[in-house]
Parts: sequence; structure tokens; C-alpha cells
Amino acid sequence: MSELLLQRLERPADGSADKAGTHMNRQVYQIIRQEILAGTIPAGCKLPASRMLAKEVGVSRNTVLYAYEQLLAEGYVTASTGSGTFVSHTFPDHSALHKVGAANGTITVPAAQQNPNRFALSRRGQHLVSHAGASDRQWGAFMAGVPDVSLFPRAVWNRLLNKHWREPRPELLTYAHNGGYLPLRRVLAEHLRLARGVRCDPEQIIMTTGIHQAIDLIARLLADPGDKAWMEDPGYWGTRSLLSNSGVEPIPVPVDGEGIAPDAATLQNPPRFIFATPSHQYPLGTVMSLSRRRMLLEYARQRGVWIVEDDYDSEFRFEGRPLASLQGLDEHDRVIYMGTFSKTLFPGIRMGFMVLPKPLAPHFAIGLSELFREGQLIQQAVLADFIEEGHYATHIRRVRLRYAQRQSLLREAIAERFGADWPTSTHEAGLHLVMHLPPGADDLGISMAARTQGLSARPLSRYYSDETQARQGLLMGYACVPEEEIGPSFRKLAEVIEPAMEHLARTQAPRRESPVKINREAWSGA
Amino acid sequence: MSELLLQRLERPADGSADKAGTHMNRQVYQIIRQEILAGTIPAGCKLPASRMLAKEVGVSRNTVLYAYEQLLAEGYVTASTGSGTFVSHTFPDHSALHKVGAANGTITVPAAQQNPNRFALSRRGQHLVSHAGASDRQWGAFMAGVPDVSLFPRAVWNRLLNKHWREPRPELLTYAHNGGYLPLRRVLAEHLRLARGVRCDPEQIIMTTGIHQAIDLIARLLADPGDKAWMEDPGYWGTRSLLSNSGVEPIPVPVDGEGIAPDAATLQNPPRFIFATPSHQYPLGTVMSLSRRRMLLEYARQRGVWIVEDDYDSEFRFEGRPLASLQGLDEHDRVIYMGTFSKTLFPGIRMGFMVLPKPLAPHFAIGLSELFREGQLIQQAVLADFIEEGHYATHIRRVRLRYAQRQSLLREAIAERFGADWPTSTHEAGLHLVMHLPPGADDLGISMAARTQGLSARPLSRYYSDETQARQGLLMGYACVPEEEIGPSFRKLAEVIEPAMEHLARTQAPRRESPVKINREAWSGA
Repeated sequence: MSELLLQRLERPADGSADKAGTHMNRQVYQIIRQEILAGTIPAGCKLPASRMLAKEVGVSRNTVLYAYEQLLAEGYVTASTGSGTFVSHTFPDHSALHKVGAANGTITVPAAQQNPNRFALSRRGQHLVSHAGASDRQWGAFMAGVPDVSLFPRAVWNRLLNKHWREPRPELLTYAHNGGYLPLRRVLAEHLRLARGVRCDPEQIIMTTGIHQAIDLIARLLADPGDKAWMEDPGYWGTRSLLSNSGVEPIPVPVDGEGIAPDAATLQNPPRFIFATPSHQYPLGTVMSLSRRRMLLEYARQRGVWIVEDDYDSEFRFEGRPLASLQGLDEHDRVIYMGTFSKTLFPGIRMGFMVLPKPLAPHFAIGLSELFREGQLIQQAVLADFIEEGHYATHIRRVRLRYAQRQSLLREAIAERFGADWPTSTHEAGLHLVMHLPPGADDLGISMAARTQGLSARPLSRYYSDETQARQGLLMGYACVPEEEIGPSFRKLAEVIEPAMEHLARTQAPRRESPVKINREAWSGA
Repeated sequence: MSELLLQRLERPADGSADKAGTHMNRQVYQIIRQEILAGTIPAGCKLPASRMLAKEVGVSRNTVLYAYEQLLAEGYVTASTGSGTFVSHTFPDHSALHKVGAANGTITVPAAQQNPNRFALSRRGQHLVSHAGASDRQWGAFMAGVPDVSLFPRAVWNRLLNKHWREPRPELLTYAHNGGYLPLRRVLAEHLRLARGVRCDPEQIIMTTGIHQAIDLIARLLADPGDKAWMEDPGYWGTRSLLSNSGVEPIPVPVDGEGIAPDAATLQNPPRFIFATPSHQYPLGTVMSLSRRRMLLEYARQRGVWIVEDDYDSEFRFEGRPLASLQGLDEHDRVIYMGTFSKTLFPGIRMGFMVLPKPLAPHFAIGLSELFREGQLIQQAVLADFIEEGHYATHIRRVRLRYAQRQSLLREAIAERFGADWPTSTHEAGLHLVMHLPPGADDLGISMAARTQGLSARPLSRYYSDETQARQGLLMGYACVPEEEIGPSFRKLAEVIEPAMEHLARTQAPRRESPVKINREAWSGA
């Protein structure tokens, strides 16, 4: 054994004596351990006395003692007083495992040979990963759905963080329960009443880590595998991913100028849920009409369906007053309202909330604890102060003006290059706009080409359940792009779009003259 | 309409003119809106001119204009220049909805009458909530699994928080991707190598919000509904809840003195996963033997099974050196290692991690983004500094001494009251110990009685899959109880335990003499 150690030990050239000693201790232990595992030092073998081994290898006796003690503690060796230290019999009993294999009618072959894809994901895991919609870029022109985090009032936030970290109450550092920090839920209930027309008591609010966790909880607590959910088509990829992964089947339902538009045949098969973005349809930006709202509420009441209202960026309305939520119109407790602070504060905060009908709220609080535990109560306490002291309202007012200005600049840039009447989504709200493209355009190709230029412009067609039936366009987030960069960045993007449009015009020209210019009404939005 | 308003308007007695004005604006809007929804002001009805209505009701014209504009924006009324403002036709088309009902062969009855339980959870939701294990108490003697958050070095943490909040990089405030903040994963890989014998590159580490999220990801990415997972019995309720809710069937496998102990019949049916707590079995506290470790690894290799190592509190080892992880012994990439900062820092931090075999790591990073998005990168940056500057190691050394001392005090208190040979779990590690109770004892009853005294002592029997086959005992967390409170709190608890033991002795006495005293070996743990 001393030969093994002499061969393999690396003597440190420098370093403090203390550090070098620790290093030697670990090395001696690891070498002996590896040789035991490999069978080079067989079970039953007696280890040399520590004093002798230390002398032969030229290390301190403490080093050998450390190694022996650790091997003993981990069960690699056994010691019996007086007779010495022996390598344990811990090699797996192959005969027992083989017997199992034989009884099972199989021949035991190492798994590595047996199954070439021993790292395979499950079917649902494979589906999730291969249909992933989350971008690996999260910042820069024109990332959709990302607010300008540099406008966040970090000094105020930091002051409140300091206040709560100075003397943190133990209850705020440990696991949470009951749906989150009650004072936050109180100020939030009041804010939602005023800003969004949401009617609720604080007890109906459950704090989540965002819209995704809320959707996940809804699917797991209110649906069983095989249940169906209507989803706006085009719609948010995250809803589709989460529902599918939980065994809930998303049924794409087209969107018209008034919002989600189930036809008569669809109406005959009530789903478990209707997921919708009434304030600002994602990604097209249309507002759900009042008559559509009332139709859905009445349908939900009659059929016992849940309407899940995703109010993700409704605070950013640039024209007129904010429109009240669908939840506020519901007299029969059929709406579950979801909100997030990702857009109004910053995405990394991972905080959102849901407003539940009273009978559901306690179940959701328990379900949330059970599935994910809870915590982050200091952050919730900071946010409660932030809202209560008025910083939240001030911040939203401030960024709303900036985002409105940025949207105008982007529209100007589009108009300058493609004409003032180029079809785009409504300008009333949101963090992104859609620049529509004529049928036959390759929005995915344009998006990929833009990416090589360091620009994000997500293809509209990818938000449809059936890309062959999809409209073409580009989602452009303007919120996180500084004013002075909007024009230049768009001109860079235009260098990618224009050749694609010219190519399209050329290839379609034989059939009819420049559809890109002439048939604009046909593809120009809802 | 002026009568309606005169009847229902509440005039503010005091308050600033500004606030009162806003209040009146909202009231007028809400009253008209409610009456339109109720049908009292029918569709097609022309609203009075704003000037006239304002005069009749005695409010400012601006108040009426505000209400009209909001009603217009939300679609309750339409305006045509010159001819006035009219209530919209937005009432749901009942005939259409009825038609659907009739075509469906059902009679349309309001859902409230149709379905008395219109707030019912799904089967899996019902199962989750009714089997919930998470306690609604999270602090105080003798909460199991909760560290002493008051020992957390908050000043250091706050200093690091300040540092990162002073000039936060935008990338740290927005969504994350790729498994988390790379510098943190680098220091963590090094820490895990030294402290836990884990062998990994930083790219194999995925940051999570804790063990629960890690289990959830594993179940969703590597299993499909109907797949099976072996679970230690007794074992952690959270694993059972998460697996069941994801459609993965937990198969309870007994635990002996060497760890999880599948019998020959069980071995014949390889599961998808083996969930285990090798360093410190939860809740019994036994350490998995080396031969059991090698047997499981060999079995996993042969059968392509995943071993999920939950190393939740392994940093708290009070005697001897820490034992290396199972992951470090694995030569064939069959172990997924899970860790958490809930016990070493504080639970509310909601941060943990998993170490994955290299081929799986990129899939898990995508799956995590897709299911939950990610964020909290500032917190991850703070933690990276905290570890790198040595505060993490210092903190663990410091609390380890305190927890060892607290455990001794609790053991002394038990010995003082119940005798030095009363059976308890091993004393080498952890944040809790188990005080075993003789068969026939009602640990659940004792736990409930303790609760009325403000004390936590979770019943051991509840950690078994089959309570009728369970051993009786009490889980007592000592980590979060200050030294001076341990004795008094235990004496209070003893006041609840003793009568139960006396009652048991009396009821069993006719059969044999005081089994509580005599047959102790039979129920005194592995």
C-alpha cells in the first residue's frame, strides 16, 4: 500500500503548512478509498499500522490517522482493538442482484450497454423541453415582456431592505404559510380595488412566485389529467407548457377583435378552465369587449367553468383610464385573477399573486405550502412598505410615461421605414407591440436573422397552436430599450426585414402584383 | 337616473377636496355601472346630458364626465357625436347559450343550483390538501427541521445585499436562465467537493427554490404518470405529496439500521427513482451503511434507475467528520443530488440546488425556466459572496456547536425525566431527534395535546405509509430552541407525555407487567 501512495501522492510545492496538511490528509484518504472501491486493496486485507505507513510514505502520522478515521467513519474499514484495521466487505453482493435478474427472466448486462439512452427524459419531460418557449436572452432590444429594470427605484428599495434586515423577526426568516405576509395582502387588496376594480378581501389573495406558479397551482388543485382548458390562440407559451406538463389538455380557441371567441361547437363542450388575458390580449394586444366578458361570465356560471384572468401587464395603459378587471364584473365567483410584479417592479423579484373565490383560498394556501413550501417574507414585507408608502404608484406612473414615449419612438421608426400605415397592434397598452407581416412572410427566419445581429424580435407565428394557420409578425418589446437606442436598433432590424419583404414580393409577383403593398387590409390585424 | 344617484350616493363628511372628488367620481361611475349590469338602466337607454345630471344630483360636471368616459372606455355605453350617450347591448345572449344547452340535451339551470359543490377541488388537488403535511406553525419549541434563524449573521448578509443593490446590473434583475448565477455555482461546486465529497462541475448545478422544487422537476422531467418511486418508510411527507400530485406512485420501502432496505420481491420491480436520505435518514436519523450504498448504486447501474439523494441537513454532523455523499461514490451517473440552504442559512431564503449528471443538466435548466421562470439572481450573487468570503463555513461551524449543545440539553432533559436509557435516535447529526414511545402509545394524541400547550412534537407514526404498522415516537426539533428554554419546554412536554405513558401501562398491565419498562429493547429503534 505504501507503493500505491508513493506513486500517486502529489506533494504540494508551496502553500501554508496548514493548508498543505489538510490537502495531504484528504489525498491519502482518497487514494486508499479509491483503491478499496476498485478492489486493488481487497476486502479482509489488513491495513498497515499508521506509524509504519507514515514512515514509509514520508507523511506525518496524523495524516494517516486522519485517513484511517475517515475510512472507518464511512464504513470502508473496520477496526478491532488490538488486532488492527481491516478493509470491510462492502462490495455489492452481485450474486443476489444476479439472482434477481435471473428470476426476472433477464440476463444481467451492465445498464450502460443495455440501454444506450439511459439519460432519456420522460415523455412529458421531452415534450416540455422540446416545446420550450422561454428565451435564453432576457435583456436588450427588443425583448418582449421585459420592463426597464434600470428605472427601478433601487435606493428606496434598498432603504426598505435595510430597515427589515436590521432586526428581522424570526417569523419572517422561516417558512411561511397561509398564503403569505398578511400586511402585504392587505395593501394589495386595496391597490387592486382602486387600480383594477378587483373585489376581494386580503384573505382571498395568495402570494406566489409569479404567474407560472399560479397557473401550476390552478392546474394541480382544480384539474385532473385529461381535463381541458381553453387557451387563447395565439396565446402565451407558458400557459400551454404548464398545462400540458400537468396533464391538462389545452384547447386552442381563436381570438377575434373582441377577445377569445369560442364558436358554437366549442361552446357545447365546456372545459374546466378558460384562460384569458382580457385587459391586453397576449400577444396581439386587443382588449376584450364588455359583451364578450359578460358572455364568458354567464357561460362560466351556467357550466361551472373557471375563468382564469391573466392580468400580466394591465398597469401599463397609455391612453384613457385603466379598464376594470373581469374579476370585478363577476357576481358568481367563477373568476380566478392572476397578477405579477415582474412587469411593474422587476422580473427577478419572483413575486406575483392570485385572487381566489373565498371558498378556494384556504385550499390554495395549503396546496402552495405543500407543493413548494413558502418563504421570502422579508421581501414581501419590503414590498408591503413600498406599496403603502406610495412608491409603487409613483414608480408605475413614472415608467408608464417612459414606456408610452418608447412605444411612440418605435412606431415612428417603423413608420419612417415602412410607411405610417404599416399594420401594427393597438397602441393603448403593454410592454410590446406586434408589427404584422404579410402572409407568406417568414417571421421565424427574420427572427433568427435578427438574433445574429443581437436583436430580439419574436415571431408571432410561434404563438399559434398551428403554425400553418398562423399570422406572421414580429413581437417587439420597447419597454427595456432606452429612448436613444430605439431608432438605431430598429434600423438595424429593418435591414433584416426589408430583404425578406423584397424576396416575398418577388416570389409572389407572378401571381398578383405586390400583395405586400396592396392586400394590406387582409392581413392587418383583427 | 338622477333619483338612483340621489338615493345611493354617499357624500363624504370630511377629507381633502381632492380625495373627496376622486371618491365621488368612482361612486357615480360604479352606481351607473351596477344599474346597467342589473338591467335597471336597460340597453338602448339614452343617458342624460352630463351638465343636466350633474345639476340634478348636485355633483360637479367633471364627476359625471369622469363616469361617462370610464363607462365608454369599458364598453358599458356608446357615444355618437351629436345624438348622445346610449347604454350598450352587452347583456349575454341567453338564447344562444340556452340553445347550446338544449342541443346538448341538458336543461339550463343556474350552476349554483345545478352543482352544490361548484368549488370542488380536483381528485389530485383533494388528495394533496387532505394529506397535507406542512405545519402551519414554523417557529418555537420543538419545531422539527427549523434552524435558529436568530443566529443568522444578518449584518454580514445585509452588507452584501447593500453592495449588490447599490449598482445592480440589469441582468441580475431580470429573468434568469441556464440554471442560475454561474459564480455561485462555481463556489458551490468547490464547497460541495470539500464538504460533501460531491464530484461535479459548476455546469451540473441547477439553482432551485429548495428541495420541493427539485423533487417536482425530477418527477416532471424524468417520470410519466404511472411511474413508480421507492420512498423510505418512514420518510419525508413532502416527497410523497409531490410525487403523488405528479402522478408518480410512491412505493414505501422499509428502513433498517443500514438505510432503505428493499426485499427480494421489491428488487424484482425496478422503479424509476429511489428517493433516499443517506447521510441522515429522515426522520429516524440513521446513516446509510457503505454496503447498502454500494448495493443501491450497483442496482441503479444495472437497472437504469435514478437514485435521488436528499442531503437536506448533512452539514450538521456533531461527531466525527462528515460522511461523503452517495453522489461521490457513483461511477455511473445514476445519482441526482439535492441540497438546500433552508437549514444552513434560513428557510425563508427559498434557495436550494441540485447536482445532475452532465447529460441531464441542460434539460433541467430549460425545464426550470419553462415551468417556473427563474430569477432571484441578486440573492444568488449575495450568496456567492457569502460563501466565497468564508462566512458560510464560519456560520455553519458556529451553529453546529450550538445545535450540538442544544441536542445535549434536550437529551439531558429526557434522561432526567424518563431515565438515561430511554430510546432515542442517534445523536450524531441533524436538527431534530426522535424520542421513541412504546407500542400502543398514542403519539398523535400526545402531539395534539402538546400543541394546546404551545409545543410542537410531531408524531413519528405519521411519517409511515401505514400508520397501523408504524412505530410510535415524537420528533423534537432542538435547533430553534434557545438553550435556556430547552429544559423548561421539555418539562412542559413531559407533563403531556407522562399521563399517556401511565395510561398505557395501566391498560396493558393485565396482560404483562409494564411493557413500557420491560420490553424496551423491542421498540427501541434500529
